[in-house]
Amino acid sequence: MAQKIAAFFQKDTYAALTGIKLLDVSEGHAKAMLEITENHLNSAGMVHGGVIFTLADFAFEVASNSYGTLALAINAQISFFKAVSAGVLYAEANEVSRHPKLASYSIDVTNETGDLIASFQGMVYRKKDLLKIE
Amino acid sequence: MAQKIAAFFQKDTYAALTGIKLLDVSEGHAKAMLEITENHLNSAGMVHGGVIFTLADFAFEVASNSYGTLALAINAQISFFKAVSAGVLYAEANEVSRHPKLASYSIDVTNETGDLIASFQGMVYRKKDLLKIE
Amino acid sequence: MAQKIAAFFQKDTYAALTGIKLLDVSEGHAKAMLEITENHLNSAGMVHGGVIFTLADFAFEVASNSYGTLALAINAQISFFKAVSAGVLYAEANEVSRHPKLASYSIDVTNETGDLIASFQGMVYRKKDLLKIE
Amino acid sequence: MAQKIAAFFQKDTYAALTGIKLLDVSEGHAKAMLEITENHLNSAGMVHGGVIFTLADFAFEVASNSYGTLALAINAQISFFKAVSAGVLYAEANEVSRHPKLASYSIDVTNETGDLIASFQGMVYRKKDLLKIE
Repeated sequence: MAQKIAAFFQKDTYAALTGIKLLDVSEGHAKAMLEITENHLNSAGMVHGGVIFTLADFAFEVASNSYGTLALAINAQISFFKAVSAGVLYAEANEVSRHPKLASYSIDVTNETGDLIASFQGMVYRKKDLLKIE
Repeated sequence: MAQKIAAFFQKDTYAALTGIKLLDVSEGHAKAMLEITENHLNSAGMVHGGVIFTLADFAFEVASNSYGTLALAINAQISFFKAVSAGVLYAEANEVSRHPKLASYSIDVTNETGDLIASFQGMVYRKKDLLKIE
Repeated sequence: MAQKIAAFFQKDTYAALTGIKLLDVSEGHAKAMLEITENHLNSAGMVHGGVIFTLADFAFEVASNSYGTLALAINAQISFFKAVSAGVLYAEANEVSRHPKLASYSIDVTNETGDLIASFQGMVYRKKDLLKIE
Repeated sequence: MAQKIAAFFQKDTYAALTGIKLLDVSEGHAKAMLEITENHLNSAGMVHGGVIFTLADFAFEVASNSYGTLALAINAQISFFKAVSAGVLYAEANEVSRHPKLASYSIDVTNETGDLIASFQGMVYRKKDLLKIE
């Protein structure tokens, strides 16, 4: 199942455009990474908040869809603790709560030395539709 | 000033990669747009939450830096109301509160028919550094 | 209906303990007020964040239950803009989005001169249960 | 110092009105509890979101002021996972990040059997003013 889920998320074109790689997925959990390039900077030369959000959001999306049924993000909150401009970023998503209709995830974004760069909390609405995985 | 600010934000490479265009900027206010392409979709074929966040975040960044001094995002919250998969998206940022050190912005993301797609609230820490605009 | 909803919310004991009064209710909308007393202060002599949240949350609760079916808060976000220590506070809730299962509300907390004290966004899960109103 | 901080927070009248007790405080950390009574219920007979927020907010306030200098809440986000109507609630605040001007805290609210009732994230602006503790 984890392999099929991972294959399914290869189709995420915006994650691919951004350069995000999925490292790990299991039920309620996912880990992703991103190597920072010039593509990711804002006008002040720092990694764009949108990049950090997208990385965390991708881990959130994979973790919340890891049961093979469709989960749609309904809201998310992100706090930024440290500016970065180079190196590697990791996002690790863990499930905080899961009900039949709603589930919540907490995602930590860290750099290569383990500093906490941002903290993300997200909630999904769980549909009954199966993901289109083979 | 508005013109210089707009020129400065041309250097935002991630916004450019994503295809975001700045439509308007004035003190405490900004408007941006994005034409949805295949680049922006997630594995379920809908616009990625990260795209919508990045669009809103860009309008937020421009509005909060519109006074010519550096403002750093410290947190943001986004609620998603409606899934989209094609068309044009707009993000309009308005200032809700501004103190010497902290300021808050509210950003509405709408589609071409004016439906509210997402609502974003963000807070910045305002530094004294001037933006490097000529 | 609005009258029945208003009567139902008289039973909110924590709102009563806090001293909150419901001023107005209609579909998707509510307004409440609070006269600040010594009861509401924190150790620094300012109105407690919990008081401001509870006032906003009450308006949110009334607005989201205003259709006569049970709505449960699933999350909320509040930003504080201005400290207060005396006077009257108002909270006005407006509906931002409503689906069969989920709905979102935005609540502004203002003082008697109309200054924005705090801004609150909340989301509810809408159950089919009818409120126990006669 | 911890004792002086604890004594200082005895003056929080709204926490006292709500029935909150401080159990523990150390640098960047605090724990509080609340015994649920009829005072805490909303019109649907469940503990009011404002009660759960106020309990978490109190732990947040104590933890963020635990260094003896004034910290003001600038925003907070709370997600509700489980409705409760009786028993005891605990809130435990831990520091996630601390800079000279800004700091972030994560607060878990649990019941007596350790179920996660709500998760709260809050950010403060740190002033240089000393708390008025003797």
